Amino acid sequence: MSETLDNAVRTYIENHRAAFLDDLAEWLRIPSVSAQPEHGADVLRSAEWLAAKLRETGFPVVEIWPTDGAPAVFASWPSDDADAPTALVYGHHDVQPAAREDGWDTDPFDPVVRDGRMYGRGAADDKGQVFFHTLGLRAHLAATGRTSPAVHLKLLIEGEEESGSPHFRRLIEERRDRLAADTVLVSDTGMWSEDTPTVCTGMRGLIDCEVTLTGPGQDIHSGSFGGAVPNPATEAARLVAALHDDRGAVAVPGFYDGVIPLTDRERALFAELPFDEEQWLRTAKSHATSGEAGHTTLERIWARPTAEVNGIGGGYQGPGGKTIIPATAMLKLSFRLVAGQDPARIEEQVRIWIAERLPAGIGHTVTFGGATRPCLTPLDHPALQSVVRAMSRAFQRPVLFTREGGSGPAADLQDVLDAPVLFLGISVPSDGWHAPNEKVELDLLMKGVETAAHLWGDLAQQGRHAP
Amino acid sequence: MSETLDNAVRTYIENHRAAFLDDLAEWLRIPSVSAQPEHGADVLRSAEWLAAKLRETGFPVVEIWPTDGAPAVFASWPSDDADAPTALVYGHHDVQPAAREDGWDTDPFDPVVRDGRMYGRGAADDKGQVFFHTLGLRAHLAATGRTSPAVHLKLLIEGEEESGSPHFRRLIEERRDRLAADTVLVSDTGMWSEDTPTVCTGMRGLIDCEVTLTGPGQDIHSGSFGGAVPNPATEAARLVAALHDDRGAVAVPGFYDGVIPLTDRERALFAELPFDEEQWLRTAKSHATSGEAGHTTLERIWARPTAEVNGIGGGYQGPGGKTIIPATAMLKLSFRLVAGQDPARIEEQVRIWIAERLPAGIGHTVTFGGATRPCLTPLDHPALQSVVRAMSRAFQRPVLFTREGGSGPAADLQDVLDAPVLFLGISVPSDGWHAPNEKVELDLLMKGVETAAHLWGDLAQQGRHAP
Repeated sequence: MSETLDNAVRTYIENHRAAFLDDLAEWLRIPSVSAQPEHGADVLRSAEWLAAKLRETGFPVVEIWPTDGAPAVFASWPSDDADAPTALVYGHHDVQPAAREDGWDTDPFDPVVRDGRMYGRGAADDKGQVFFHTLGLRAHLAATGRTSPAVHLKLLIEGEEESGSPHFRRLIEERRDRLAADTVLVSDTGMWSEDTPTVCTGMRGLIDCEVTLTGPGQDIHSGSFGGAVPNPATEAARLVAALHDDRGAVAVPGFYDGVIPLTDRERALFAELPFDEEQWLRTAKSHATSGEAGHTTLERIWARPTAEVNGIGGGYQGPGGKTIIPATAMLKLSFRLVAGQDPARIEEQVRIWIAERLPAGIGHTVTFGGATRPCLTPLDHPALQSVVRAMSRAFQRPVLFTREGGSGPAADLQDVLDAPVLFLGISVPSDGWHAPNEKVELDLLMKGVETAAHLWGDLAQQGRHAP
Repeated sequence: MSETLDNAVRTYIENHRAAFLDDLAEWLRIPSVSAQPEHGADVLRSAEWLAAKLRETGFPVVEIWPTDGAPAVFASWPSDDADAPTALVYGHHDVQPAAREDGWDTDPFDPVVRDGRMYGRGAADDKGQVFFHTLGLRAHLAATGRTSPAVHLKLLIEGEEESGSPHFRRLIEERRDRLAADTVLVSDTGMWSEDTPTVCTGMRGLIDCEVTLTGPGQDIHSGSFGGAVPNPATEAARLVAALHDDRGAVAVPGFYDGVIPLTDRERALFAELPFDEEQWLRTAKSHATSGEAGHTTLERIWARPTAEVNGIGGGYQGPGGKTIIPATAMLKLSFRLVAGQDPARIEEQVRIWIAERLPAGIGHTVTFGGATRPCLTPLDHPALQSVVRAMSRAFQRPVLFTREGGSGPAADLQDVLDAPVLFLGISVPSDGWHAPNEKVELDLLMKGVETAAHLWGDLAQQGRHAP
C-alpha cells in the first residue's frame, strides 16, 4: 500500500484514460443484443473485438468459446510466480435490447460523453465493468514493473447473460479444468452510491415451482354444487396464505434449517449504510414495507430467505361474473435462499408440505424449474479483504458491505469451480441498467480501473487459501 | 279430491294427449335460441306461436310484450269468482343453443318420440313445462264444467331466460300492476326422480363481486424486493383463505345474521330423499365432499349460504417462471344466500371485512354485480300445500321436498310482486338440460298436465292469503 505505488497507478491511468474511453466507446457501438436473433452476428463481433483487445493487453491465451447460443471469451495470463493464487474474472459482453424510441436521448449504440458520464447501452452493464480490467491490469504491470500479473489471471466473459445464461452452466462444467481458480471475481454488479463504495458479499439462491391443483372434472355450477365440494382456487389460496406465519417467516417446516444467520457485525455494518427507506420504497414502486419480523428492510432483501407468489390463476378472469367452481387452479411460487440452505432439500420440503395440506378431492402436481444456489463470502475471508483494501485505496475512503437479493450465474461458478465468489462493481443505482439512457460515471469507472490495478498484488500476498 | 273428478281429468287428458304432443313438437321445431342473434326472428316466431295457442286455449287476454331484447308472452284469464286468488305462472319460451354435431342422435329442432320420451331442444327446459299448463287448464275446465279458471290465472313466459334474463327485472317492474298475484308458480325446475315426486320450496340468492388488489406500481423484481414489500397476489390469497373458518363456515362477520335455519322437519324430509352421494359426486364431477360442518351435502347445497371463489388471478400465468412481485391481483367471489339474509347488508359486510384485512401498501376496489334475493316458502304455507296435494293426486304417491341451490329470476318475481314463489316441475335430472339429447319423459309430462288440472281448484279453496 505504498504511496508511491498508488501514485504510479494513478498516473498511468490518467495517461491512458482517453484512449481507454475511446476503446470502450468503440465496443459499445457493437449492438451485442443476445436476446434478438438479428443481432447474432453482432454478439460474435463483440466477442471478437474483446478477444483482440485482450491480446493487445498482453494475454498470451485468448480464445472464443462457442456455445449452443452466443460465444464466450476466455483469456488467461499465468503469473511468473508459479505459486501465486489463481483468480477468475467473470463478466459478460452481451447487452439488453435498446432503441432510441424507448426514451433514449441519444442513439443507444452511438455512445456520447456528457457531464462526466458515458451514455450507451452496456456502458455499465456490463462492458464498462469488464473493460476496466484491461487498463487495471496494464496499470498493475506498469506500476510494479512486472511482466506478468501477480496472480494467475483468467477472464471468462460470457455472451448470453442478458438472455438468462442458458448455456453457461454446461460451458463451465465442460471447461472446468481450464477455469479452475482459487477466487472468482464477478464484475457485473454495483455499489451503494457514488459516495459510499461497497463490496457485495453474496447473492441469494432461487428455486421456483409451478403448482397445479385439480378439483371437479370441469368447471361446475356454483349454485348447484357450491359449498359441498372442494374448490381448487380456494385450496391454491389456502396454500399461499399458509406459506408465511404471523411473523412473516416462511412456514414450510425445515425451511430455515442450516440458514447462516447474520452476524452482529454484518447487521451493524448494514445499518451504517445511508439507507433512505422512503426513497427505497419509491424505487420499489411500493407503498409500504412488510416482511419477516425482527429484520430491517436491507436484511430482508439481502440476507433472509423468502417465499413469494409470482403468479396465481384459476377459474374465470374475464369481465363480469361467472358462477362456477373452477376445475383447476395454478400457482407460481419462488423461494429466495441464503447461504446454508440446500435447494434440493427445500424442494423436497415444499413438495411434502403442499401434499400434506391439500384436502381429499384435490389433485396436484408440483414442477420445479432449475435451482440456483445461494453464495456468500464471510467478511473476514482473506480474498474479500483484498477486494476491500484495493477498493479503499482507489476510493480513499472506508468500504462498506452489501449483498444482492437476486440470484445469478455467480452461484454456478461457485458451485462448479468450488471457489469463493467475490463481487467488484463500481456501477451506481442511477446508471439505468436495462433502461433508457444507461450510463457509467467516468470517475467511478476509473476508480474501478484503479481497484483492479491494486487487487492482484494484494490477492497474491494472501496466497492460496481454501474456500 | 273426489275420485270422480280425478277420473274425469285423467280421461280428458288421455283423449287429448296425442294432439297436445303434436302441438308441443310443432313448438319445439322453432329454434328460439335467445343467445344467438341469428335466431332473433325464431324467438319472435316462438312467442307468436305460443300466443296463438293460448288464445286457442281460451285466454281472453294474450299479449306479446316486447323488451329491449327478446319478447315475453303474457296471458290472463280472470276467474268468474271475483274473490278468487290470483296465480301467475312463470316460464320461458327461449332455449339453449343446440347443434346435431354437439352429440345429438337426432336433429335437436326436429323432435322425435322414442321409448316414451320426446327428444328435442326445449322438450324439458322449458317449452314442455310451459305447455303442460294449456292442457292442464282445459282439463280443469272440462272436468269441473267451469267456463273460467277457479283462480284468476296469469301467465308470463319470457324469451331471454337462457341469456340471463337481462331485461326481465325491468319488464316486471314496469308491468307490476298487470302481473299482480297472490301466488307465483314457477314451472322451470324439476323433481327428484321419476319415482320421487318433489316440490321445490326455495332458491338461494346470489351476490357476486370482483376484488382488485394493487401493490407495487408495476411488476417488480422478486430478487431485489422480495420479502420486504407486500405482494397483492399473496393478499388476495389470504382473503380467500380467511373466507371460511375451521368448520367450513363463512367467516365474514355478520354473514349468518338472520339466516332462517332448517327446521327439524325439513331436515328429516330431506333425509327421506333417496340420496346417493357417490352418484351425486359423479354428477358434480368431483372427488370428495366438503363444506360446512354439521350439515349434509343436500343441506349444504340447498339451505346453507356459501362463499365461493369463481376466479383468481395475478402475476405471471404463462409457461415457465417469472420472478416478480406482481403489481395487481384479482378475485371473483360469489356468495349464495338463503332466506333471511339481506344481499345489500351482506355486500356491506363483505366490503368492510375486505378493507379491514388488507395491510398497508395494498390498495383495493370491490365491485358488486347485481344481487338476486333468496326465496323460500315455508312447508306449511297454504299455497305450497295446494301444490303438494295436486301433485300427489297426479302421481298417486307422497310428495317430498327439495330446494334449489342456484339462483334465478324467481326471486325477482317474489321481490317485485311481493308474492310467495312456488315451484312446479316434472323434469328429472336425466332430461339433459343444456346438453345434447334433451328429452322429456312423456308419462311425467302428463303428470304435469294432471297436476296443473288439479291445482287451480285447490288453490281457490285456500282463498287469498298474505305472503
